Amino acid sequence: MPEKPLPEKPLTEEPLTVAGLSEAGLLARIFPRLEIGGAHSSAVLLGPGDDAAIVSAPDGRTLISIDTQVQDQDFRLTWTNGYRTTGFDVGWKAAAQNLSDINAMGAAATSMVVSLTLPPETPVSWVEDLADGLSAAIKELGAVNCSVAGGDLGRGREISVTVAVLGTLAGGKPVLRSGARAGNVLALAGTVGRAAAGLALLESESDFTSLNRGQRELLDVQCRPQPPLAAGPLARSAGATAMMDISDGLVRDGTRLALASNTVIDLDPAELKRLAESLKPASDLLHLDPLVWVLGGGEDHGLLATFPPGVQLPPGFTAIGSVQAPGINSGPGVTIAGHAAGTGGWDHFAE
Amino acid sequence: MPEKPLPEKPLTEEPLTVAGLSEAGLLARIFPRLEIGGAHSSAVLLGPGDDAAIVSAPDGRTLISIDTQVQDQDFRLTWTNGYRTTGFDVGWKAAAQNLSDINAMGAAATSMVVSLTLPPETPVSWVEDLADGLSAAIKELGAVNCSVAGGDLGRGREISVTVAVLGTLAGGKPVLRSGARAGNVLALAGTVGRAAAGLALLESESDFTSLNRGQRELLDVQCRPQPPLAAGPLARSAGATAMMDISDGLVRDGTRLALASNTVIDLDPAELKRLAESLKPASDLLHLDPLVWVLGGGEDHGLLATFPPGVQLPPGFTAIGSVQAPGINSGPGVTIAGHAAGTGGWDHFAE
Repeated sequence: MPEKPLPEKPLTEEPLTVAGLSEAGLLARIFPRLEIGGAHSSAVLLGPGDDAAIVSAPDGRTLISIDTQVQDQDFRLTWTNGYRTTGFDVGWKAAAQNLSDINAMGAAATSMVVSLTLPPETPVSWVEDLADGLSAAIKELGAVNCSVAGGDLGRGREISVTVAVLGTLAGGKPVLRSGARAGNVLALAGTVGRAAAGLALLESESDFTSLNRGQRELLDVQCRPQPPLAAGPLARSAGATAMMDISDGLVRDGTRLALASNTVIDLDPAELKRLAESLKPASDLLHLDPLVWVLGGGEDHGLLATFPPGVQLPPGFTAIGSVQAPGINSGPGVTIAGHAAGTGGWDHFAE
Repeated sequence: MPEKPLPEKPLTEEPLTVAGLSEAGLLARIFPRLEIGGAHSSAVLLGPGDDAAIVSAPDGRTLISIDTQVQDQDFRLTWTNGYRTTGFDVGWKAAAQNLSDINAMGAAATSMVVSLTLPPETPVSWVEDLADGLSAAIKELGAVNCSVAGGDLGRGREISVTVAVLGTLAGGKPVLRSGARAGNVLALAGTVGRAAAGLALLESESDFTSLNRGQRELLDVQCRPQPPLAAGPLARSAGATAMMDISDGLVRDGTRLALASNTVIDLDPAELKRLAESLKPASDLLHLDPLVWVLGGGEDHGLLATFPPGVQLPPGFTAIGSVQAPGINSGPGVTIAGHAAGTGGWDHFAE
């Protein structure tokens, strides 16, 4: 009886990729992880499975925003410092940054739809992990009435995740960028600069396994931001005159608010210093000026809001400056103790 | 006085690319082309420029659907037959296929948001053309109350266009896939197979400049589909029991409707033959069986609907078969004059 030849390599099980499943097969793996039709989906009247979903819009209006994350633009699968972005990270961040846009209007999210573009070699487990991250962000960030109402799957050369999110103002007025008035207090909920410090760590040569707890926390803000979802509706109730989320940096986004309101946003240097100090774990390691992250870093998805003078700031907000009238010789914009702030922040196309 | 050296190459003006503009600069080129705030935007209460848009949802509900087109998956910039996909084509198709999803529920679109991912070398004129195509499709297909409420711009290695569309049922009941009943008439509005015949022409060696008018019309259906947007709400008013749009093929989508309704969809061979005959300009040239396109071709975005027996079909619909109860030995599915139809159509992941 001839001997069986030994296999040249030990037999290992190849991970299942999306190329190995039909579209329906992949959807069947994803949907149960999104808890569709569960306790968290009260606003979704008709979920996935038909040509469109139906979502409740109780006050006769719906908010909508859309945002895309693309591999190698918004995240790297493997970073310089060795950290590997998980599907969970990408799902979490896609949900978080969209929920933040609804929060920034003073509203609550009701549902989201998700379009995934995946290279055929993407492991199915990575996609399942992405669904888990989406679901976890919705729950853990407190978007309790939001669930995933539907989606779309397709192929591409790079991973791309687009979320469109719906929200409700429950009969209230939206808080726009244009309502800031001279004399208002400028306040921040959540953080700024931490995600940028985390990005600098990811792009550094300092191996991520050697990071200490404080450094790791900054990295985590970049990968899984924590927008303060309770703060938006609270700010609206407290009479916030203007609000937006900081996704491209304090100076860049502050300038947008200043332009929309035709005002000057003046930042308090003592508050900027305080925010910069919280970034010491990264700035000490990398020998970089943390103020650059405070002024130019986006992606924490903190809220920048303005309130009438004398209003007690709602929980979660800290005063970081004031709103002033444009000067005779200077237009609307951002200043630090009266001096023009350098532009900073993220532009998708400018080099 | 020294002579000026002659330039080595004649000075030609390089086309402006998206890398040469800031995000705000590119948006400033796009927005005016979308006629935001114009006569076509009655449902958009707050347009682009804030963290989220606000859209009217008059009956307290909104429909939502999302769909992505990716370069080299859903379109090629240059096809085998030499045709170059224009930005206008991509914008038109992105709008059309999303509007079709709302149509298939028996509803009317109220707004869309658009997320564009663009390689830096994309000419700005191509993106302007895309905005024109989006706008033209909305108007020319008859989505008169729809406009673009907002969007997102980012970079990537390949062009990707995601549209999320909202719609209203104006207090009516949605027409789902699950309502077909034995004895119903099966009817089609719009076309099937023409986009697939057009795709075959695009992927053939027959230079597109040599195509005759009939062939060119088929190619145009692939590049700029014409979903019958009036037919959806008319079908709902006429009492359609089930409806969906045919985006992945008559057999594949018919099977979905049959499964959702637990019925058999039986197609009339005489009607299939009639539909196939309209594809002769392509099938004669390419020596291919047009019935394959009729049964397996998607992307015309015609509507497949079922009506109670005796109902007068609304304008635009033609009977193409009937709905039957599943047999004792056979489950729900699609048959042709009682014989099981081969599966066909498009799956994004199956090879």
